[in-house]
Amino acid sequence: MARKANKQLRESKRAEILKSARQLLLKKGFANTTMKDIAETINLSRSGLYLYFSSTEEIMQAIITEREHKRFDIIRESILASKPFNEVLDKYLELQKERLLNISKSLLMSGYEYYSENSEEATQFLGKNLDEMRRTILGVLNLGVEQKKIHQEDLPTIGDHFILTIEGLSVFCYLHQASEKYIDEQLALLKKLIAFI
Amino acid sequence: MARKANKQLRESKRAEILKSARQLLLKKGFANTTMKDIAETINLSRSGLYLYFSSTEEIMQAIITEREHKRFDIIRESILASKPFNEVLDKYLELQKERLLNISKSLLMSGYEYYSENSEEATQFLGKNLDEMRRTILGVLNLGVEQKKIHQEDLPTIGDHFILTIEGLSVFCYLHQASEKYIDEQLALLKKLIAFI
Repeated sequence: MARKANKQLRESKRAEILKSARQLLLKKGFANTTMKDIAETINLSRSGLYLYFSSTEEIMQAIITEREHKRFDIIRESILASKPFNEVLDKYLELQKERLLNISKSLLMSGYEYYSENSEEATQFLGKNLDEMRRTILGVLNLGVEQKKIHQEDLPTIGDHFILTIEGLSVFCYLHQASEKYIDEQLALLKKLIAFI
Repeated sequence: MARKANKQLRESKRAEILKSARQLLLKKGFANTTMKDIAETINLSRSGLYLYFSSTEEIMQAIITEREHKRFDIIRESILASKPFNEVLDKYLELQKERLLNISKSLLMSGYEYYSENSEEATQFLGKNLDEMRRTILGVLNLGVEQKKIHQEDLPTIGDHFILTIEGLSVFCYLHQASEKYIDEQLALLKKLIAFI
């Protein structure tokens, strides 16, 4: 019982650290944020913070993983449950749209800054993230093939085309150059694309 | 005669400043580069530098305008000369590919940093840049319409789709996640797209 309570306490503390660190990273960027800064904002000693995370890299990775990826858990579940392709694709695009509309509060630029480091760790993490994005969209597209809604041609290229267009949209939305209507039109074009190809 | 020589001297000095400033911006990023830093690298007094540029913003804008945009001058000329659509489109994609293959030496991230400022000036410049990119690709697409090679539907959406996909590719190339083959496949998909739509 005590152990369970301990675990809960630890998890809520971890979530609290990530939340504050996120705000700090948004404000100061990745390169300018230190473990000391993070410890200070949450009123924790530096040694206390190190009980949870060993570096700003690790914190960055945890934030990206938990925020951005959990969003698409429902898509992965729908694929496993073999839901109708059009429904899953629409949900996928809807979640992307939701993400795009909230991108000004995202760590997009701090993420780029982190990845630009080209440290082995950052490169590996970027690769892992990309793999996960690819698995999700390819899962959706393969569902369409299984349900005979789309052809099985160039799926990896089309999957990456989705990812690239959405990355471009992310940059545009972040820099305040894309309205909701604009996002809708571009996502509709992606949907149209797989009907043709 | 003296005036002409003076003008040439001035232009070569200007080019020299932009070249050195570019190296510095690549190394230190936009926010960390000052006019003092730039003056120091080129062995010019600060007051001397101000004879050419009044701010790091102005220098940033000049670099982006001269490097990235002049690349597509040949496309604008081909459009005015009504060259065959397929030839112009291929040249456009070839120039984009060349840009993408050299992107690690580009100011992509410093540019994002500058635009993220959201100063009125940065926002205006971003808008102007986008307009220019749009005019170029729309010029190419309209050439296809005039020559009855493609339909006149959704051209602004398709034009922006090109820009967005290429922006996503820029980020991927910058972060070292895109091979030449990968770029080729994605640009080929864009070409295929306008044949279908």
